[in-house]
Amino acid sequence: MKLSELGEFGLIERLQNRLETRAGVSLGIGDDCAILHSLQTPIVTIDALIEGVHFRRDWTTPRALGRKAMAVNISDLASSGARPVAAFVSLALGARDDVEFLDALYAGFEDAARAFDFTVAGGDTTQSRGDTMLSIALVGEVLDPKRGPVLRSGARIGDVLLASGSLGDAAAGLKILQSNPEEIASIPAKARDYLLQRHHEPAPRLELMQQLLEFDANSIHAALDLSDGLTGDAAHLARMSNITAQFDAEKLPISDFCREAARVLGFDALDLALSGGEDYELLIAVAPEKAEDLVNRFRDENVPLTAIGECAPPETNSFSRRVVVREQGRIREIARAWTHF
Amino acid sequence: MKLSELGEFGLIERLQNRLETRAGVSLGIGDDCAILHSLQTPIVTIDALIEGVHFRRDWTTPRALGRKAMAVNISDLASSGARPVAAFVSLALGARDDVEFLDALYAGFEDAARAFDFTVAGGDTTQSRGDTMLSIALVGEVLDPKRGPVLRSGARIGDVLLASGSLGDAAAGLKILQSNPEEIASIPAKARDYLLQRHHEPAPRLELMQQLLEFDANSIHAALDLSDGLTGDAAHLARMSNITAQFDAEKLPISDFCREAARVLGFDALDLALSGGEDYELLIAVAPEKAEDLVNRFRDENVPLTAIGECAPPETNSFSRRVVVREQGRIREIARAWTHF
Repeated sequence: MKLSELGEFGLIERLQNRLETRAGVSLGIGDDCAILHSLQTPIVTIDALIEGVHFRRDWTTPRALGRKAMAVNISDLASSGARPVAAFVSLALGARDDVEFLDALYAGFEDAARAFDFTVAGGDTTQSRGDTMLSIALVGEVLDPKRGPVLRSGARIGDVLLASGSLGDAAAGLKILQSNPEEIASIPAKARDYLLQRHHEPAPRLELMQQLLEFDANSIHAALDLSDGLTGDAAHLARMSNITAQFDAEKLPISDFCREAARVLGFDALDLALSGGEDYELLIAVAPEKAEDLVNRFRDENVPLTAIGECAPPETNSFSRRVVVREQGRIREIARAWTHF
Repeated sequence: MKLSELGEFGLIERLQNRLETRAGVSLGIGDDCAILHSLQTPIVTIDALIEGVHFRRDWTTPRALGRKAMAVNISDLASSGARPVAAFVSLALGARDDVEFLDALYAGFEDAARAFDFTVAGGDTTQSRGDTMLSIALVGEVLDPKRGPVLRSGARIGDVLLASGSLGDAAAGLKILQSNPEEIASIPAKARDYLLQRHHEPAPRLELMQQLLEFDANSIHAALDLSDGLTGDAAHLARMSNITAQFDAEKLPISDFCREAARVLGFDALDLALSGGEDYELLIAVAPEKAEDLVNRFRDENVPLTAIGECAPPETNSFSRRVVVREQGRIREIARAWTHF
């Protein structure tokens, strides 16, 4: 069915029937605006996914795309020490898109809303002349209002840098998508499925952040989520905290699956861990005297923490010296991070 | 200059230098998220403007486009009885766009932010393969938390329907843009400039709503802003309030400029007032015993109110009977409203 057959009332009704209003939202889709319950420390993020730039229709399903679009925004909130309350979706449907595409996309949104207990509370839908574009604004609340949000600017000289989970998996998944069928067939199925899932279904580290804050809120000095690659994102943290981020290449958490795929496809797993994007793991600057406790606390969890570097005094203002990677006693040349233009 | 020459840090710094952080915002552009001050009744709206659908590059300047993009969102908040606090911009720049375009667009955003006392507090910028698309989420606060937001669903049978300002001007401005130079030349310059401005620079009725609520908050039962045309938008209010909106064609406020342009270009001014979009005036359902007081209160203001109809008992569920227009004692056939697909 084409959108034009549905009409504007039909669309609103259709979405209302598919979306649940959860705690924190008084009025969802249907009026000019959505109304939320009182927020002590409101926190907001916005992010767009654009066809041909951030996703390809032949590599993903609309439902997975819906989940991922929400996940990348939830990840921004999680890294800031906040949880989502309400999402607002601005959608420009491509010329080829139909109501079935819209339904599947919104099913993906609702999957995420159910999993992370928030409400898809508003949006606007229009038709574009070309590509599909979706932009999601997420309004949330800071998890620990007494401690406040966890900012990029809070890292101090001497802090230990921790990474959650493993790095480079999502980029390895992308490499697989870009490979030919023969190459793909020579990667063990388990590794292939894991890496593709890491690419398609990033898991925002909200529970981890909540546990970190509960364990010792004051020792968590700064954090951000790794969307554009470790070295590129670390430069943001380094710049805003006025430190130099020093990493030890040997310490980076790289999954066996990533190493396996790297071997088969002939690329460098460490490169992916350093500059591959879309892992949506957390990079966290913590008080040095608490680093070991934190690593031990999460050792047996699904998402462990690894100490991968430290915050050194700022060297210069240039990008290349804001982030330093040591490898076997020498400084490794780092690739330029992914940028959007 | 191309965006790629600026880099991501360069872009953030550039925007930070151009945007002022105003009351209600603790942390604006630069981190993963923006942090706001506590909000008693948060209210959120989101809207997209897409090249080729909502705007044409040859009809507007980027700065006016920036102002208009903000204005249409502010209008949504104003009609809900709320004021803006923070705006979040998701921007997909077209392939041809450069830093100068971005600067001018953001200058327009900041014009609106200064005029309506809010902060452009976050955003993401990316490059699309084709058209320019921008989506703005606006987070606000309800003006009168005791009365609460003014919803579409609050109209009661017997309520009088008031319209602010004049209707059809923006659509007349659009007709002028679509006319040939000869036709345009035969419209008096004053009328032409006024109507084009009404099209390019919609004025959100925030001050009016504030004054209405101060005058008598409880008599303001429902409101919405007229973005898609009176009859189409009234159907939303009628549906959500379960009434039939009855209008008297003779009472619609139509400006002399609109009538003048209509005469010259050979179209029906009443048609534009009934179904032309983008006036961003308010349609307000008020208690019948207060309607005259309200009209008198605003008689000498820049933006007067006109009683144009009333809320009758619901007739049927069909669109055509949710909105009835009477003209010289007969029911006028109404054109289908603008829809986005």
